[in-house]
Amino acid sequence: MNKRALFTALIGGMFLFAGELVAQTPPAWSAETLQQLRQIQQTALQDDYAYRQAAHLTDNIGPRMAGSPQAAAAVEYVADEMRKLGLDVRLEKVTVPHWVRGEEHTELVSYPGQAPGTEQKIVVTALASLNCATPPEGITADVIVVNNFAELEALPREKVQGKIVVFNEPFDQKLAASGFALDAYVQAVAYRENGRLAAARLGAVAALVRSVSGAVFRLPHTGETGYDPKLPGIPAGAITAEDAELLARLTAQGPVRLHLVLTPKLLGEVESYNVIADLKGSKHPEQVVIVSGHLDSWDLGTGALDDAAGVVVAMETAQILKQLKLQPDRTIRVVAWMAEEIGIFGGRAYGKQHALEAGNHFAAIETDLGAGHAMGINACCDDSMLKLLQPVASVLLSSGAGVLRTSEDTGADIIPLRIAGVPTFSPIQDVSTYFDYHHSAADTLDKINPTLLRENAAVVATLAYALATMQADLPRKPQPTPDWMK
Amino acid sequence: MNKRALFTALIGGMFLFAGELVAQTPPAWSAETLQQLRQIQQTALQDDYAYRQAAHLTDNIGPRMAGSPQAAAAVEYVADEMRKLGLDVRLEKVTVPHWVRGEEHTELVSYPGQAPGTEQKIVVTALASLNCATPPEGITADVIVVNNFAELEALPREKVQGKIVVFNEPFDQKLAASGFALDAYVQAVAYRENGRLAAARLGAVAALVRSVSGAVFRLPHTGETGYDPKLPGIPAGAITAEDAELLARLTAQGPVRLHLVLTPKLLGEVESYNVIADLKGSKHPEQVVIVSGHLDSWDLGTGALDDAAGVVVAMETAQILKQLKLQPDRTIRVVAWMAEEIGIFGGRAYGKQHALEAGNHFAAIETDLGAGHAMGINACCDDSMLKLLQPVASVLLSSGAGVLRTSEDTGADIIPLRIAGVPTFSPIQDVSTYFDYHHSAADTLDKINPTLLRENAAVVATLAYALATMQADLPRKPQPTPDWMK
Repeated sequence: MNKRALFTALIGGMFLFAGELVAQTPPAWSAETLQQLRQIQQTALQDDYAYRQAAHLTDNIGPRMAGSPQAAAAVEYVADEMRKLGLDVRLEKVTVPHWVRGEEHTELVSYPGQAPGTEQKIVVTALASLNCATPPEGITADVIVVNNFAELEALPREKVQGKIVVFNEPFDQKLAASGFALDAYVQAVAYRENGRLAAARLGAVAALVRSVSGAVFRLPHTGETGYDPKLPGIPAGAITAEDAELLARLTAQGPVRLHLVLTPKLLGEVESYNVIADLKGSKHPEQVVIVSGHLDSWDLGTGALDDAAGVVVAMETAQILKQLKLQPDRTIRVVAWMAEEIGIFGGRAYGKQHALEAGNHFAAIETDLGAGHAMGINACCDDSMLKLLQPVASVLLSSGAGVLRTSEDTGADIIPLRIAGVPTFSPIQDVSTYFDYHHSAADTLDKINPTLLRENAAVVATLAYALATMQADLPRKPQPTPDWMK
Repeated sequence: MNKRALFTALIGGMFLFAGELVAQTPPAWSAETLQQLRQIQQTALQDDYAYRQAAHLTDNIGPRMAGSPQAAAAVEYVADEMRKLGLDVRLEKVTVPHWVRGEEHTELVSYPGQAPGTEQKIVVTALASLNCATPPEGITADVIVVNNFAELEALPREKVQGKIVVFNEPFDQKLAASGFALDAYVQAVAYRENGRLAAARLGAVAALVRSVSGAVFRLPHTGETGYDPKLPGIPAGAITAEDAELLARLTAQGPVRLHLVLTPKLLGEVESYNVIADLKGSKHPEQVVIVSGHLDSWDLGTGALDDAAGVVVAMETAQILKQLKLQPDRTIRVVAWMAEEIGIFGGRAYGKQHALEAGNHFAAIETDLGAGHAMGINACCDDSMLKLLQPVASVLLSSGAGVLRTSEDTGADIIPLRIAGVPTFSPIQDVSTYFDYHHSAADTLDKINPTLLRENAAVVATLAYALATMQADLPRKPQPTPDWMK
């Protein structure tokens, strides 16, 4: 019994046929490389480089809104750190909008049962888009609360016209608790993304959406919201779950009038950068395997989970290979994407800048769902990849990351590459608490568990080296370019 | 086997000797009264009056800071509701300080690794006391972080002088998770209460305490802080757990400078009221059993758990007795206390105003630890009460509230009565999540679970009627009046 067969036997039922499959096809990895993969994994599970980088990005640099001085400092910092490791670093220009939050507050100015001479505070934060501000003095209007798009669209236009529309779609806690937090998020975030447009279409003067979050601690969660040049650019904000419920209860009792001040500004376009750091391949330096996260964050918290965690896991990949003196066959390219939050500017710029070299992009990995327990690998999207990657899954099984599945959730910044036919990957992450903090002031370093961050680094570093050394091709399926990418 | 013996047998081991005891001493309650107690309990477990009152106090009236128009509206509201029930209502004057929150913000103006031209935000809220504000333009000073009083006191005065002292005592999550959240709170709140004085004693220019909370969602928790006329009145605020940790990490790297603006004001003294509503006793109308909660709240949330829940449970007691047409032997007095948060003004005023009638106060109940699952009765503080009250515990057992224990945690507003020798009581409440919301913006109606609120109403209403009808005396133990009450 050779070592591989023993390992296969040890890992038991899940990969029962792995030995057999490996025996039938030429192995994509030599025994020596598999041993290196185990070494990478074990090193990552003990290394604190990633956490220290996350601490610097979040504690010392702070929120890294695209276009901000902090984002510029983060670009310099990551580039320097990668240079220190001996990588070949360059900054690739990305023109980004510089959006800044202004004043933001909301008061319930009249409502049923109000105590004379009083107001109540509604906790609000602006959503980001074009033409999304109130005048400096704010607007005052009656509120209408709907639970979903269907309820809104069933209303006659005159009921909506001139009103502030509140979308009170709750985050499905039960769905999230059963392991489908991402699905719960996708359901609820539709209102943040499209609520503004749906409200504008019916003549509303503003849209407020219930914050998309699994936790209810009077915390607003920001994000991007829709823009349509054919519709009036009405102000849009996120209110807390508590305030959405309050408005639902009060409007059920009688007329409710809100004063809303949201004065975000687009300061214009700023030159920023994707940080590109290459660890050159020894055999096929022209072939690239990307490991990445996005360097920009929202401004409310310090973007620890979203997405310092992703960037530092990519940085850790390079650091571990340098530490172990392992040079991959293909080039491993660490990318810290810029301006994902505000519209995937960095990912789209890269897609255009490197369109002609798409064929040389062997694979791309992104981590952008926090730093929860890493359970395995999402591969997009051909089933045949699962069989091919079984030996990597076998290595990762010892840290509880042995799951291999096809999924399109491999990160927004690498969608342009995926569309160009590049196979894309991400760690499968436990996101059960991710959306509690996501896009809020509570997304801070303490939310990163160092042990779980190391688990993610182990998956990404092992997978990246595996892809950069594999002696087989991955299936490639280019897709038509969607409108939003053009 | 009579019904009582059957019941005692059914409830099993815990009250194994209850039948025996009842047989040996004259029963404090007739079989008919015990049947009424069961009826009260069952009615309370199904009634939604308490919840509707809580909704009005929190949603419609809102935060009820002592001295505010909302507190005045709440006084009127509770008095009206009690009059509607046919109770004998009067307002008893309480002179209260009217404290209002001003501007509050804090910025990290210089710190290690800072990106050029940037600041970071520290989330802060003012604590309430005398002379607790910064100048309007704020103060700027270096930060020193300590984990506890011993660490502070071990420092030479020159290390503290001129600094902003941050107390980073964490809330003991493990202790709280093992069922001792109240103990975890008591440990941590010492820094909110005394941190300002300890810092002032060593020449600090301000004190910031880590928010006392079991949850970590970048949410500051306010509260009262110490005042000593012999010490300089330095500004004091609560920062979030995240920010306290951030400051601890950054100060470990090098000097950290904060700009702090806290401009709360004492607007002066305001005439306010305890609401006193009597349901007259048929046999001993001069003897009083108080059921109570405090009507004022902090200003950040709407004071749902702290303490609308307590007030409405007391109101529910009267409502149920009226609904069931039950008149107690002694007078049941519903009290909505004023200005507990800012210094137990209502409770102390009542103690003074009724000092001569203390002997006529048969018992006092207060609910002031939220609306978690009601597990039984705290009785202060003579062990002999436990035997006496077993039949009541037997009734309450069916809603999981069969525990009887001696405890001094029977509510702050009735401490003056307790000191005068009045037996005091409170429901034993599950407080495992109470401190997550306590004194924060997240203390809102949605945190009250209607079913659990009914459980608390069942305990309080049943206990109140039991005390107001019992044919036995309770042990009374007057204590010397402490300085703070004089």
